[in-house]
Amino acid sequence: MQKATALAHPNLAFLKYWGKRDSKLNIPLNNSISMNLGGVYTQTTVEFDNALAEDEVLVVGQGAEAKFDRRVSKHLDRIRSLAQVSTRARVKTQNSFPAGTGFASSASGFAALTLAAAAALNLNLDERQLSILARQGSGSACRSIPDGFVEWIAGETSEDSFARQLATPDHWDIVDVAVAVSQEQKKVSSSEGHELALNSPFWDVRAGLLPSKYERMRHAILERNLVTFGQELETEAMMMHSIMMTSAHHDNTSWYSGIYYWLPDTLELIMAVQTWRADGLEVYFTLDAGPTVHLICLESNKSMVAEAVRRLATQHDRLNWVITENHPAPGARLVDG
Amino acid sequence: MQKATALAHPNLAFLKYWGKRDSKLNIPLNNSISMNLGGVYTQTTVEFDNALAEDEVLVVGQGAEAKFDRRVSKHLDRIRSLAQVSTRARVKTQNSFPAGTGFASSASGFAALTLAAAAALNLNLDERQLSILARQGSGSACRSIPDGFVEWIAGETSEDSFARQLATPDHWDIVDVAVAVSQEQKKVSSSEGHELALNSPFWDVRAGLLPSKYERMRHAILERNLVTFGQELETEAMMMHSIMMTSAHHDNTSWYSGIYYWLPDTLELIMAVQTWRADGLEVYFTLDAGPTVHLICLESNKSMVAEAVRRLATQHDRLNWVITENHPAPGARLVDG
Repeated sequence: MQKATALAHPNLAFLKYWGKRDSKLNIPLNNSISMNLGGVYTQTTVEFDNALAEDEVLVVGQGAEAKFDRRVSKHLDRIRSLAQVSTRARVKTQNSFPAGTGFASSASGFAALTLAAAAALNLNLDERQLSILARQGSGSACRSIPDGFVEWIAGETSEDSFARQLATPDHWDIVDVAVAVSQEQKKVSSSEGHELALNSPFWDVRAGLLPSKYERMRHAILERNLVTFGQELETEAMMMHSIMMTSAHHDNTSWYSGIYYWLPDTLELIMAVQTWRADGLEVYFTLDAGPTVHLICLESNKSMVAEAVRRLATQHDRLNWVITENHPAPGARLVDG
Repeated sequence: MQKATALAHPNLAFLKYWGKRDSKLNIPLNNSISMNLGGVYTQTTVEFDNALAEDEVLVVGQGAEAKFDRRVSKHLDRIRSLAQVSTRARVKTQNSFPAGTGFASSASGFAALTLAAAAALNLNLDERQLSILARQGSGSACRSIPDGFVEWIAGETSEDSFARQLATPDHWDIVDVAVAVSQEQKKVSSSEGHELALNSPFWDVRAGLLPSKYERMRHAILERNLVTFGQELETEAMMMHSIMMTSAHHDNTSWYSGIYYWLPDTLELIMAVQTWRADGLEVYFTLDAGPTVHLICLESNKSMVAEAVRRLATQHDRLNWVITENHPAPGARLVDG
C-alpha cells in the first residue's frame, strides 16, 4: 500500500494549550482538554510515488493555514524517517470548512496527514504513537487523533507528550455552537502567541492554577456536570485571554500592550452569554486564539442558543457571522479516498 | 460665613484605585496616580441654615451618581462633626457634563462638596486634611483636591491615606481625549467591583507589581517621558481590566465569569490605538471602570488623535460617541456662587 486517505476533525480546547516547554517539539507547559468538532473536518490523501522528485501538496479549496504546504513536507520527513524510506509523496488535502469560519485547520490537517501517511507506508503505529507524531506537525493536532473528549498529557519529553481519550463521543450530549464573527486572518500567529505568553505578568499564576483546574474540568466532563464544567470553561477562556491581553511586546515598528485576538463582536457575544444565562438559558462560552466564540450547551438547548445568536446577529445587522454546530466526534480515521 | 461655593474636576487615574484595605473609610490597597480633567467639572454650593430640619440636596441637570443625595448628607455629618455643629444645609450641585459622557461625578462631586462645606463652616483645613475628608465621601475624590498631577498615598489609617500634588498642571502638556461610547449606566458598581477584585486569581500578582509600577510611572511623569509613561499606562489599564474580567461572581440569580465593563466599541478603540501607534501617531489609552476610552497624547498631537477618532466614528456610524478634551487642571477651589 502506497496510498491512503484519512479524515480528522478540528478540536476545541476546553482547557487551553498556550505556552510551550519545547518550541521545536511542541511540548506544552500544561495538560489540556478538548473535544473533536463533528461539524467540520479535513480529508487528506497521501500517495507515495517513486517517480516524484519532490513532495507535491495540493490544497483543494480554501481554509489552509499559512505555510501549510511547506510544513507538510517537513512532517512527511518525520514519517519517512520512521518508515526508513525516502520516497516523495503527492498530498491532496481539503477542508470541509472555508477560511474564516473560525476553525484552525492545522489540528485536523496534521492529524489526517499523519494517519494517511503512516497508513500509506504501512507503519504499524498505535494511537499514542500517532498522536506523538501529529503533535510534532502542529501541537494541538495530537488531540484530533483519539475519539471524542480528549486530554493531552503535557509530558516532559517527546515520548511522553501525547493525547488520549477522556470519554467517548457519545458520553455526553453537549454541543458547540461556534460563531465565527470575522473572515480576516489574525495578526499575531499562535506560534508567536505561545512565546509571548511568558511576557504576561500573570503567567506564573496561571501555570500554578492549571493542575487543579485540569482535575476539576476532567471530573466535570466524566460526571457530565455542566455547571461546574461551564464555569471552569469560561474562567479558563478569560484567564487565557487575560494572559494574551497582558502579553506586551514589540514588533519591528511598534510596541503593543498585549495581543488582542477579540473583535468587538466577540465581546458582544461574551456579554450576551452572561445575559442569556441570567435569563435562564444554560450556555457557556470559550474562545481560542481568535475572535470566534464557541457556545457550549446541552443538545436539548442547542436550538434556543442558535436562535438567540441569530436574533443578536439580526439586531446588529451582522450578515457575516457564520454559525456551525458541532457535536463530539470520533478521532482521525481512514476513509475511502 | 455660612455659605460657600466650590468647583472641582473629575480626575483620571493613570495608576488605578481598585481594591480597598478598608471599605468604610475608603482606604485603598495601593497608591494611585491621577490627573485632574480640565474639560469637565462639578460646581457645588453649600449653605448651612438653622431654619432647616433636614439637609436639602438639589442636583441640577443630569450626571449625578446613583444615591448621590443620600451620601451627601452622610458626608456633611463628617464635616459638621469636625466643626462641632449640627446645622443642616442646603446643597446645590451641578455637573458641567451630562450623564453618559463617561465621567464619574463622585470624585468631583465629593471634592467640591468637601471644600464648600468646610469653607461655609469656616473650618481651617489644609489640603491634606481636605483630601482625607473628601476620600471618606468617595475614595477617588481625594485626588480631585490638589492641583494638576496627583498621587494618592494609600496609607494604612484614615489619617495617613491622602492625596498630594505630584506636579503642577502646567508641568506637562499632555491631553486626555476622552471617548464616551455609551450613555448607559454600568451594571456592576465600582463599590461592588472593589470587593470582587479579590476574587481574581491575578489579584496578588497585581498587588505585588504595583509598588514598582508606581515608582516608574511617577518618574515618567516627573521626567515627561511619554513612551515610558504611555507603556505603563496601557499595561496598567489592561492589568486592571484583566482583574475585572477574571473576577467571577454570583448575584442573586446567576453566575458571571467576570465583570465586563467594556463595550464592543471600547475594544474597537483599543485596537485602533495599537494601529494608530504602529502608523506613527504617539497615543496611548487607559480605561476606568467603564466603557469610556481615554486617549493620552501630547497637546501637539491632540487634533490628529481627535480626528482619527472622528474618522473611526464616521466609518462605523457611531453617532453616539462623545469626545471631550481634557488638559491637566487645578484642584478643588472656591468660586463665586
